[in-house]
Amino acid sequence: MAQKVTPMGEDFSRWYTDVVKMAQLAEHAPVKGCMVIRPYGFALWENMRDRLDRMIKATGHENAYFPMLIPESFLQKEADHVEGFAPECAVVTHGGGKKLEENLVLRPTSETIIYHMYAKWVMSYRDLPILINQWANVFRWEMRPRLFLRTMEFLWQEGHTAHRNEEEAEEETRLALNMYREFAEGTLAMPVIVGEKSETERFAGAVRTYCIEAMMRDGRALQAGTSHMLGQNFAKAFDLSFQDQDGENRFAWNTSWGVSTRLVGAVVMTHGDDNGLILPPKIAPHQVVIVPIYRSDDERAGVLELAGRIMKEAGETVRIRLDDRDQYKPGWKFAEWEQKGVPLRIEIGPKDVEKGHVVFTRRLDREKEFVPAGEAAALLPKRLDEIQKTLFDRALAFRDDHMKEIDDYEQFKAEVGDGGFFLAHWDGTVETEAKIKEDTKATIRCIPWELGEGEGKCMVTGKRSKQRVVIARAY
Amino acid sequence: MAQKVTPMGEDFSRWYTDVVKMAQLAEHAPVKGCMVIRPYGFALWENMRDRLDRMIKATGHENAYFPMLIPESFLQKEADHVEGFAPECAVVTHGGGKKLEENLVLRPTSETIIYHMYAKWVMSYRDLPILINQWANVFRWEMRPRLFLRTMEFLWQEGHTAHRNEEEAEEETRLALNMYREFAEGTLAMPVIVGEKSETERFAGAVRTYCIEAMMRDGRALQAGTSHMLGQNFAKAFDLSFQDQDGENRFAWNTSWGVSTRLVGAVVMTHGDDNGLILPPKIAPHQVVIVPIYRSDDERAGVLELAGRIMKEAGETVRIRLDDRDQYKPGWKFAEWEQKGVPLRIEIGPKDVEKGHVVFTRRLDREKEFVPAGEAAALLPKRLDEIQKTLFDRALAFRDDHMKEIDDYEQFKAEVGDGGFFLAHWDGTVETEAKIKEDTKATIRCIPWELGEGEGKCMVTGKRSKQRVVIARAY
Repeated sequence: MAQKVTPMGEDFSRWYTDVVKMAQLAEHAPVKGCMVIRPYGFALWENMRDRLDRMIKATGHENAYFPMLIPESFLQKEADHVEGFAPECAVVTHGGGKKLEENLVLRPTSETIIYHMYAKWVMSYRDLPILINQWANVFRWEMRPRLFLRTMEFLWQEGHTAHRNEEEAEEETRLALNMYREFAEGTLAMPVIVGEKSETERFAGAVRTYCIEAMMRDGRALQAGTSHMLGQNFAKAFDLSFQDQDGENRFAWNTSWGVSTRLVGAVVMTHGDDNGLILPPKIAPHQVVIVPIYRSDDERAGVLELAGRIMKEAGETVRIRLDDRDQYKPGWKFAEWEQKGVPLRIEIGPKDVEKGHVVFTRRLDREKEFVPAGEAAALLPKRLDEIQKTLFDRALAFRDDHMKEIDDYEQFKAEVGDGGFFLAHWDGTVETEAKIKEDTKATIRCIPWELGEGEGKCMVTGKRSKQRVVIARAY
Repeated sequence: MAQKVTPMGEDFSRWYTDVVKMAQLAEHAPVKGCMVIRPYGFALWENMRDRLDRMIKATGHENAYFPMLIPESFLQKEADHVEGFAPECAVVTHGGGKKLEENLVLRPTSETIIYHMYAKWVMSYRDLPILINQWANVFRWEMRPRLFLRTMEFLWQEGHTAHRNEEEAEEETRLALNMYREFAEGTLAMPVIVGEKSETERFAGAVRTYCIEAMMRDGRALQAGTSHMLGQNFAKAFDLSFQDQDGENRFAWNTSWGVSTRLVGAVVMTHGDDNGLILPPKIAPHQVVIVPIYRSDDERAGVLELAGRIMKEAGETVRIRLDDRDQYKPGWKFAEWEQKGVPLRIEIGPKDVEKGHVVFTRRLDREKEFVPAGEAAALLPKRLDEIQKTLFDRALAFRDDHMKEIDDYEQFKAEVGDGGFFLAHWDGTVETEAKIKEDTKATIRCIPWELGEGEGKCMVTGKRSKQRVVIARAY
């Protein structure tokens, strides 16, 4: 804990890795590209997962579990899908001591196996819609892994739905995206831009891909969630059809949508600072930590007595922890809990006991507040709400400060390396998008639903553009 | 739903598969040995998982996540372990389009990867104990798969702990087993016998394996959970050592313990009957279902009004569902919810509305009760508790009826095929155990902590026996 994190300004990438490791969120596993999510990181993920799970269920979806092993031939049934995913697959060729007749891939995503099963379950329009979600581990071979952001194995949820017609499927795709927006902004305190992906960035096999894009503190974009309108592509590949009310046989319409442990990385890079992690109260494993300060045994008894009282009063409403470890000094504990991003610290020393107050210190700006001891517990939920809101406001202000309209390509090329989101006109062609990427490593993050209104001329080709798009370098 | 399950007495194995499929708990996946857990089955598993997860956390353990892919060389570091698990492994040989330098196995269990990581985290006795659990999917190649009972991929939790000395590790092993007993009996209403496994049945790599054994309705035994005292076997293989308080370097002591989706099968076979599933209220996805009965629109309005009132009053305290589907008749709904094992049904017809009462019907024995409409909601928790208790009592009575002491081997051989647990004296040798298995297909389920007291003579060899052991045919 004595160790300090590399300052953001010095090397953002090292700052990120330092924070993830020192806060004990995760570390590299022996197999390249895999990670171990440590208890503190997993508690954070559990809080995220449980909140999102409630939202998924509240919108009428049920959880299920589909097998991880997918026959190689399944992947090949949808042409775009196999092209996109086959190069990233891990392949099981042997099992039970024998070579397999057909190779099995570790799911990179589960469209194929799931729609194969739906085809068995759906006969009539009465069996639709199917609204299922699963929480699972998935595998995509990674050449340049980074903890949480790009790992060979990651944890995620994937919603998979089947509908009677295009309208319903489109509505579902947007419902999922809006749920992600609400989750990102309301729970993770992370502002996002919602919109549609360009053809180049679309999910392999989808008709349209919608996404939420967040800005990290180095100005780069991070795709935080996607929702795919799959049309009838998979339904046709897996013969997922149904007899409609009019007696006709029709193919179903599918959607799929997912977010992953990548969001842990997004939270780190949205809120963190040079002292380490800063966690939004709604997902923090410990929302409040009490650090007692004492020298003598007498002082210790008085301080712990008061701390115990606050623990008891607050324990039902907030996730609070008393750090009564004797082997560490208060200053050491302050630094540790700051690195771990605990939103609010309560300091209690002998003088505080005497005066009948305690000291609240917010992690986000170290602002201190003296609070009468008897009111401390009752005040905590309010202070945590304020912190949650302040984190969102601060992240939103940061993003808006680093986002601007731009019309000149030369200027864009000069500035894009410094990070930030650029709202620019684009002629809508794959060629222009490829040129931008080639010239600058930046990509079209999305065609936003808001913020981009109004026609104009493509900053690269001068051709007609329907609206501005968001361009940035991305994770 | 018109379809009926095969009667238990006719073919228990077909009865089981019928119940699992008709209650829509699970079905076979395209890859042999894998299964799809359908929403109703997964909701059941979620309720089990969430309750056990709270018990695991309440006893001081934290969740984490370790990678699924394990280098083949890791498995080979503990001699007994590799011998036990290597033949069951699924092996990844290719990834990202290339042949791998070292094969990766899909975890059959995670001792190797986890103790490899603990070795990095533990320096001093201050870093101990480590008390970690993970919920994960695991893989064991299966030649004769059965839904939930034996599948190639299954879901489970695995606790992995590291301790300073043998006493602490032994205490932890027993703590985990007692937690499983409490969970099985208190939550699943499934009585279990606790005890130690014989050497033959021990976990590959363990010093001692403890287990809970339950009796299914065909009299066969099902191992429902295990807790392993691993001694220093893995610590030595993975160099998991620490500097003790006296300055000496010592190897840690490990334990591991797990239960799996197999428990879903155990619940089916402990409580079910010829009408299908019977679920203990504590884990039932729907604890109560209201089936409205009406002919005219007028009747419909009155009945649904009352149903809605009960839903509103009861919705906070019990998991209640109103089955207001118009396309199915009440009798059809009764049969469906019986097959799905919903513990309590409320019937409301126009006459009930008139008389101001409703009808409760218990799934377990179809016992009916007329309840004043205004008291129905408030009465539900009490009735559900009674059902939970009755299920346990009934299962316990069944087990005790099918368990007896036996001293004559010829008699044992004649009777063991009919099922049941036999408390017999055994001389403690591997040879005698092998002979019993060879002669009868029955195995020593455990050396029980209770029920087996008192010395005697082995029923096979006549040699000295310290106590009776539980012998049965098993799943």
